[in-house]
Amino acid sequence: MQSYEFLLIIAVILLSTKVFGLLSERVHMPQVVGALIAGIILGPSVLGLVEETDFLLKTSEIGVIILMFMAGLDTDIEELKKTGLASFVIALIGVLVPLGAGTLLYLGFFPDPSDPLHLLKAVFVGVVLTATSVSITVETLREMGRLKGKVGTAILGAAIIDDIMGIVVLTLVSAMTDPTVNPISVLLRIVAFFVLVVVVGLIMYRLFRVMTKEWGNHRRIAIYGFAFCLILSFVAEHYFGIADITGAYFAGLILCNIMEAREYINKKMTVLGYMIFSPIFFASIGIKTELDGMTASLLVFSVALLVVAILTKIVGCGLGAKIMGFTWSDSLSVGLGMVSRGEVALIVAQKGAQSGLVDSSLFPPIVLVVIVTTLITPILLKLFMKQPAEGSAPEIRHEHI
Amino acid sequence: MQSYEFLLIIAVILLSTKVFGLLSERVHMPQVVGALIAGIILGPSVLGLVEETDFLLKTSEIGVIILMFMAGLDTDIEELKKTGLASFVIALIGVLVPLGAGTLLYLGFFPDPSDPLHLLKAVFVGVVLTATSVSITVETLREMGRLKGKVGTAILGAAIIDDIMGIVVLTLVSAMTDPTVNPISVLLRIVAFFVLVVVVGLIMYRLFRVMTKEWGNHRRIAIYGFAFCLILSFVAEHYFGIADITGAYFAGLILCNIMEAREYINKKMTVLGYMIFSPIFFASIGIKTELDGMTASLLVFSVALLVVAILTKIVGCGLGAKIMGFTWSDSLSVGLGMVSRGEVALIVAQKGAQSGLVDSSLFPPIVLVVIVTTLITPILLKLFMKQPAEGSAPEIRHEHI
Repeated sequence: MQSYEFLLIIAVILLSTKVFGLLSERVHMPQVVGALIAGIILGPSVLGLVEETDFLLKTSEIGVIILMFMAGLDTDIEELKKTGLASFVIALIGVLVPLGAGTLLYLGFFPDPSDPLHLLKAVFVGVVLTATSVSITVETLREMGRLKGKVGTAILGAAIIDDIMGIVVLTLVSAMTDPTVNPISVLLRIVAFFVLVVVVGLIMYRLFRVMTKEWGNHRRIAIYGFAFCLILSFVAEHYFGIADITGAYFAGLILCNIMEAREYINKKMTVLGYMIFSPIFFASIGIKTELDGMTASLLVFSVALLVVAILTKIVGCGLGAKIMGFTWSDSLSVGLGMVSRGEVALIVAQKGAQSGLVDSSLFPPIVLVVIVTTLITPILLKLFMKQPAEGSAPEIRHEHI
Repeated sequence: MQSYEFLLIIAVILLSTKVFGLLSERVHMPQVVGALIAGIILGPSVLGLVEETDFLLKTSEIGVIILMFMAGLDTDIEELKKTGLASFVIALIGVLVPLGAGTLLYLGFFPDPSDPLHLLKAVFVGVVLTATSVSITVETLREMGRLKGKVGTAILGAAIIDDIMGIVVLTLVSAMTDPTVNPISVLLRIVAFFVLVVVVGLIMYRLFRVMTKEWGNHRRIAIYGFAFCLILSFVAEHYFGIADITGAYFAGLILCNIMEAREYINKKMTVLGYMIFSPIFFASIGIKTELDGMTASLLVFSVALLVVAILTKIVGCGLGAKIMGFTWSDSLSVGLGMVSRGEVALIVAQKGAQSGLVDSSLFPPIVLVVIVTTLITPILLKLFMKQPAEGSAPEIRHEHI
């Protein structure tokens, strides 16, 4: 007979993330912060009530896919066209600065010229710092009603490009230790994926437009939309080695121009998200944190890594935004929005560990960076991001929280 | 790295259950039939595309919990009070008739007086036939707009009582082979569970009424409601050995008297259900079916078992309804609604196999009974259940399918 404990775990996650979310709202912070803290408290670092299971892993994966699908659906294509180049520049400088700084920091803390892989290991720490995870930022911007604005779109666009750059850098670095991975074939696969997205996108866009005209807003539209998102996520990950969330975002992007369907699907995905999948995703980030095994010297390195992680994204991405003509205030917001590392950095670190380039002792510092940058991003955004001058209202879903 | 195949599997299940559901609607059958057929086609008996994983098992468990929670929320307490005794009589005769007939059928087909457990094995086949699973009926009645009527409430009530009687009978029979299970302690646990439900119910009813008055229809009401449902499901299964769906139904029952909250929670659960969990549940029933290993004599037994399974519930429950003053037509509907065995019979069979009372060769016939009764119940209901004379409209959710 199967164990039914997962039912209790879901209930505990739902209740604790909601209660802590409402508490964090009381002190004018996004509910996401509360949800993350709830996860840390439930996880092995504090109460040890919930541990990561295959079921939670998969459910939280669906959660992050739903978040990125909704981000895609919410994207203003016209705005993205306008900020396309800006996003590229933001992402590029925002990848190069932490990559360099992370490498130098590791070399400074752990000098060991006898190891032939030493430089490569240092570069890998830099790679870990490149991976932005904007799902937290997306949720925060959505709560603040700023997701669809210039800053929000630039961040989303930059995060997508950042994701791809991160994968390219990661694969290139990994390729140097493993002769079976061919960097050129990886680049070709990435190009192939985008060709696929364009072709499938054109077909699906037409198909969904016809279906919406034919049936109006029926359940099936939302179900087919969600299924499409899941398939594209799977295809990206399975056949192209690209993060599934990139597939989910593009699925949303393809459908975001069909106004009626977009809003209907988004509404259903929102319910699906907040009723079960998003809380599990946010809690799982906290649950991943095992803060044991920290020595004093590692703690110093952790703090240094953390400072570098935060400053390099703010400076790198902010600089990119400023170069592209954003105001100082908007440049700062863009930089702040890109600080959060989330689960992508953990995945990169895990890949590094698999190829022997990241020592397991580096996991606590990396986890700390992930947690703190994730916690701090919404707080920094709330503190330093100016509320929209035109008084545009927050998006609808805010009202029902 | 984890495999991302589960994303594809969810997408395939969503698409196939929806497409087959719409096709079955074309031929005036409930969408549930199409969803079940989609599951059989995906499963090992036909295409073998999808196999049961821990993730699917848990997701489909959430699906059946959501279905029963919504059934509880939909329950008309006033109607249940009126039909309480009727439900009891329906359930009682509806358990005794298939129990006796199943036992006799097995004794007739497999006479083996040398086996000391022979009679017990025969009784266990009877026990398998007692377990009604009304989630299919619930979905069908909901589609037909008959869930809240006299027949629907009687069926739901009888199914709950049937569930408990089934567990009592199952535990009593199992207890005879295993001296560690004490039938009296089992009975005490069942009584204790109902005491708990009444006490917790009174508290939760007040709590949710206050919260609804305080906040109105906020997301948190739906989230807390769902969490409460999950906790009661877990508690029933884990501490009392009662099916989790009984807990889910009672959670719904407790909240069904808070009109505003009830409708709001139901709406959110409906989205959660049709967007992912219900399709997975219905498909998983089909996926469970492995129709290999059928011999000719087993096939004859299967057909006989199937006929007995269908007729004994119609006659037993119909008789109960007739005794309690239902019209002939309504009595037939009640009998038909109780025919479906669903996953409960499979669970009972599995428990029998664990205690050595059900031979694995009996699994294909039992699975056939489950599948066919599940398939046939909505068809029979659609064919023989009179549409309501008062022209009451189908429930709202029908419109958006």
